[in-house]
Amino acid sequence: MTREVVVGAAQLGPIGRAESREEVVERLLTLLRSAAERGCDLVVFPELALTTFFPRWLLDEGDESGLAGDTTELDSYYEREMPNPATQPLFDEARRLQIGFHLGYAELTPDGHRYNTAILVGPDGDVVGSYRKVHIPGHERHEPWRQFQHLERRYFEESPDGFGVHEAFGGVFGMAICNDRRWPETYRVMGLLGVEMILIGYNTPLNYAPDPSQNPLQAFHNHLVMQAGAYQNGTWVVGVAKGGVEEGVESLAQTAIIAPSGQIVAQATTIGDELVTATCDLDMCDRYKKTLFDFDRYRRPEMYTLLTSTTGPQALVEADPDAAEHA
Amino acid sequence: MTREVVVGAAQLGPIGRAESREEVVERLLTLLRSAAERGCDLVVFPELALTTFFPRWLLDEGDESGLAGDTTELDSYYEREMPNPATQPLFDEARRLQIGFHLGYAELTPDGHRYNTAILVGPDGDVVGSYRKVHIPGHERHEPWRQFQHLERRYFEESPDGFGVHEAFGGVFGMAICNDRRWPETYRVMGLLGVEMILIGYNTPLNYAPDPSQNPLQAFHNHLVMQAGAYQNGTWVVGVAKGGVEEGVESLAQTAIIAPSGQIVAQATTIGDELVTATCDLDMCDRYKKTLFDFDRYRRPEMYTLLTSTTGPQALVEADPDAAEHA
Repeated sequence: MTREVVVGAAQLGPIGRAESREEVVERLLTLLRSAAERGCDLVVFPELALTTFFPRWLLDEGDESGLAGDTTELDSYYEREMPNPATQPLFDEARRLQIGFHLGYAELTPDGHRYNTAILVGPDGDVVGSYRKVHIPGHERHEPWRQFQHLERRYFEESPDGFGVHEAFGGVFGMAICNDRRWPETYRVMGLLGVEMILIGYNTPLNYAPDPSQNPLQAFHNHLVMQAGAYQNGTWVVGVAKGGVEEGVESLAQTAIIAPSGQIVAQATTIGDELVTATCDLDMCDRYKKTLFDFDRYRRPEMYTLLTSTTGPQALVEADPDAAEHA
Repeated sequence: MTREVVVGAAQLGPIGRAESREEVVERLLTLLRSAAERGCDLVVFPELALTTFFPRWLLDEGDESGLAGDTTELDSYYEREMPNPATQPLFDEARRLQIGFHLGYAELTPDGHRYNTAILVGPDGDVVGSYRKVHIPGHERHEPWRQFQHLERRYFEESPDGFGVHEAFGGVFGMAICNDRRWPETYRVMGLLGVEMILIGYNTPLNYAPDPSQNPLQAFHNHLVMQAGAYQNGTWVVGVAKGGVEEGVESLAQTAIIAPSGQIVAQATTIGDELVTATCDLDMCDRYKKTLFDFDRYRRPEMYTLLTSTTGPQALVEADPDAAEHA
């Protein structure tokens, strides 16, 4: 197997609240077939690619600390199994075309856990690996002062599994989801596992209510963190948006394929359904992994103990009021 | 005391092998006085700011594993105390002008340890804190195939102390040196300690012998890592170069002051001695530290254990051949 992987980053435009999974899967199939025509080995769909971004609404009638009341609509946005009747055509067509794909969706487990999940499916149609979002952004409780909600922390549990890598497509693949990409630990854990390509889907509203001064910087921040994560770990990064104006909320597009050099080698130019492709040489990773970022040679874990011993400055001060003075 | 700090990033052009400390200190004094005229509270000088970048030469006659033979010239590049007669005028003038400064230099301790060191001096002339480089790049042994050497790993020990922060100038300050800036752990350790401004001096040759494909990307990488480190930790970053062509070796300039937003707010336009200044509002850090990057709320240290339990993929595989399969 060659170490070149042709990747299609399949950006999605908005998905309406009333849009059915069957309609969405038709859109995914269109992108998948375009990818096949362009010689792709792998198509990367974004986070929560099957439905509208439902955390923007309060959809249950719970008290402040948890879900309750009628959760019928909320539950309708989750997948109870994968594949399922609505997504089976995607699996079938991918297998027929011998293309792998990455798909983000809301997962409701048989025992009632809710995760923001992604899977990687090989060209034979088998699931190679799955990932549940580690860094859940937003808030737990209804905050009426916001123009729209970001209730991810109400609707999803944090992953109990963490980050992993998977051998696929002749290389080492990893996944992260949306807000994970802003945290250097995300890339580093997978970097330590030898990752060569990280697939990241995202839904990023352009209006960040807690600090609107960040709004005009969203595109810059998006690329900054993915480019730094790629470079600092010598890995390819594929960042794929669900962008455009969805149910009145404007979201970032800016889908990009990023080389281990940190360079953007392909980028979407629209805010709708759009496929961008790049031929990614996985051997390029070693230019960084075996030189400047030879972790085994240069890293100093004994100097990083705070990274795993505390969540943040407040926990640190609570644990030891003198600790903040000097590491 | 106001939370606005006026910072001068005092880039240096080349320092010749024959240039004396007294001559260099005169250059530093010129920059210091310019900074005073421009209202600076703090002037940041680069790494190894008192001498030429001597790791580019083999300066001893040791066997492969350590220094030996005549180390007279090598030793001449280190400071045995700070301040010392050559640098005392800088301390005196800074105190007179009531300006703090940051200075990088080679340190030779009384018991024979060699470090790549920086100090932060307050406006009263007292040393507020010191830092020794954690991530030493380059190589330990003479490598004749190189156009020039990068013998930092021969001439400097790794810091035994790690990263810390210091209360100064009305805020929380940290230091890092050169190659440290490429490692996200550098910023994160200090971010967890609540850092609000990180001072980083660097000497970065534009020719990276182990992988020349990185040469045209040096300026991009330099800003990428510092901008990401600033944004991801909600901190100001001041990156100051010794640039230009020094003893035939071309080094990166690109001195920059970077806001907690990741935006470059001031940047050098020459490759020589140049002062760039910015008024830095330390309260701006909270826009990020208390929202998107509220570490106590969003970080998940239990998912980052690999960051401190292993140096890299090779150590991981040696420790447990199955570990690389999945975290």
